[in-house]
Amino acid sequence: MDLREALTRRIDSLNKPKGSLGMLEDVALRVGLTQGTLRPRLSCPTHLLLAADHGIEREGVSASPREVTWQQLLNFTRGGGAVNMLCRQHGFRLRLVDVGVDHDMAAHKAEGLLSRKVMPRGTRNFLREPAMSAEELSRCLAIGRELADECIASGSNVVSLGEMGIGNTSASALWMHLLTSVPLAHCVGRGSGLNDEGVRHKLGVLEACLRRTRPSAPLDVMREFGGLEMNVAVGAMLSLAGRGATILVDGFIMTACALMASRLEPSVLADCIFCHKGDEAGHRLMLEALDAQPLLSLGLRLGEGTGALAAYPLVDTAVRMLTEMNTFEGANITKYF
Amino acid sequence: MDLREALTRRIDSLNKPKGSLGMLEDVALRVGLTQGTLRPRLSCPTHLLLAADHGIEREGVSASPREVTWQQLLNFTRGGGAVNMLCRQHGFRLRLVDVGVDHDMAAHKAEGLLSRKVMPRGTRNFLREPAMSAEELSRCLAIGRELADECIASGSNVVSLGEMGIGNTSASALWMHLLTSVPLAHCVGRGSGLNDEGVRHKLGVLEACLRRTRPSAPLDVMREFGGLEMNVAVGAMLSLAGRGATILVDGFIMTACALMASRLEPSVLADCIFCHKGDEAGHRLMLEALDAQPLLSLGLRLGEGTGALAAYPLVDTAVRMLTEMNTFEGANITKYF
Repeated sequence: MDLREALTRRIDSLNKPKGSLGMLEDVALRVGLTQGTLRPRLSCPTHLLLAADHGIEREGVSASPREVTWQQLLNFTRGGGAVNMLCRQHGFRLRLVDVGVDHDMAAHKAEGLLSRKVMPRGTRNFLREPAMSAEELSRCLAIGRELADECIASGSNVVSLGEMGIGNTSASALWMHLLTSVPLAHCVGRGSGLNDEGVRHKLGVLEACLRRTRPSAPLDVMREFGGLEMNVAVGAMLSLAGRGATILVDGFIMTACALMASRLEPSVLADCIFCHKGDEAGHRLMLEALDAQPLLSLGLRLGEGTGALAAYPLVDTAVRMLTEMNTFEGANITKYF
Repeated sequence: MDLREALTRRIDSLNKPKGSLGMLEDVALRVGLTQGTLRPRLSCPTHLLLAADHGIEREGVSASPREVTWQQLLNFTRGGGAVNMLCRQHGFRLRLVDVGVDHDMAAHKAEGLLSRKVMPRGTRNFLREPAMSAEELSRCLAIGRELADECIASGSNVVSLGEMGIGNTSASALWMHLLTSVPLAHCVGRGSGLNDEGVRHKLGVLEACLRRTRPSAPLDVMREFGGLEMNVAVGAMLSLAGRGATILVDGFIMTACALMASRLEPSVLADCIFCHKGDEAGHRLMLEALDAQPLLSLGLRLGEGTGALAAYPLVDTAVRMLTEMNTFEGANITKYF
């Protein structure tokens, strides 16, 4: 009997009507397979918050100005963001990483901020030129690997990822379009709050980007349309895959990163739990392309990894189900359906 | 400026795009209004697990035999049920209450079980006669009031309710049909696991019940089709309303109880948070009739209040948002949309 069968059998023997814990049963199976055991445990959950700026922001594709990236990152170092509140609530270690924020963060002497700037001003404007060089992409992947290694070394087997980077729904829409062939117009949404006219402008800009270049190989898409924080996230996911860690995938941007990672290494999806279906147009279609059923659908559109963190207690419940609930036999209960 | 306006203004001033915390913003507003403050706190959450048997079970309307009610209740006293696991996880005090389980629970010397049997063998078979007398209904409401009073006296301002009672989706389906006028066939579902034939039989039995009597006044519906545990739940909800406590409403059966309570006292809905949309046919329609948007939709169909408990961390997040997140002004962040 292989582990999948043994886990399924164990889940079905618990004292509840078969299948009555719904999606939590799928999560329990998934975490058990990732950890390779009938009795998984979650330990030392870690949240990686990756921040960077995007050259494309100069084209007016976001409702929010670029300086919000560094201002929010600084706010996070002081504990005042939604991501901080959720990490405190659910006992996550928070790793704030500047991988290319257009600001001298060191000047603020903020504590607990890891500086790994690949490009100190953020990516280049991909309407005119590639977002980054091949060498800069390599550095992103290496930083992702470093962060993943640190998670594993510190005993963390649950890693959620989040981002802060004004402009990153534009990069994500291009990734989605190029990897799934969903029409670009269905991939483009309001981001942090564009109105209809803003969305039309964003779509026009992104169409122009695709006239400049139309890469198809995953690494070319990453280099051309970047997102330093997105490329680091892809690197972290690739490095975590197969090492016993569950990856909690947040909303539109992190789903794009999971999609990209899966094109480079399909097995990464086995370790992913998709946590939240956001409001961003296209997110539903991208989840469908991944055959993913997200745990939550709360209308969050904040980023930072808030959707992944908000879903964590459900993952915890699923794992506790396997280890804390009685079986029918153990409880002397008439087996029912 | 009234409290609703002040709460809305506070939520909009937090350092996030307006509306970007989605349904959590609605929950924050609701809890703030229930507690009458801009800075709500959740204290001493309590879960009321109400158990009883149903005479209608004798007509073969459930996939599970009657003895599962007492066996599971006993299992809960030993900590081995899904409800125990969730109470431990989220720090809920669990109150197990026997309001009419067809078994001598005292013989097991189980600890922590409150005995409030209104009818020691459960309700009468409502295919043939009223489930209970007017006096028995009054006792149910009084027990609900007693339980609510104890919650308030012990400092609890979050109360979730759950049930254990083989046969109670039949009673709930009749309540729903009589209170909402949704056709009975759309109110009847699989319960703990009926197949198609079982559902047809259940529907036939319930149609016959309505040929015997077809009450319309809420108290008559409660007396005729009972559910001791359901009537106690209605009593508890009515007694909690307006006293500063948030009521976490679980799946199909507890939604039927909230619906019933709202027909007796409409203001009760202001204090309710609908937590989970279950798989039971009709639950979606009942939630629509209440204009309720539930927080979760995980395909749970276990009862016990598991859907309400699973949603608690989201309610906690919503409250923390109001008290822990910085405002734009406090964090010196450029206001964005």
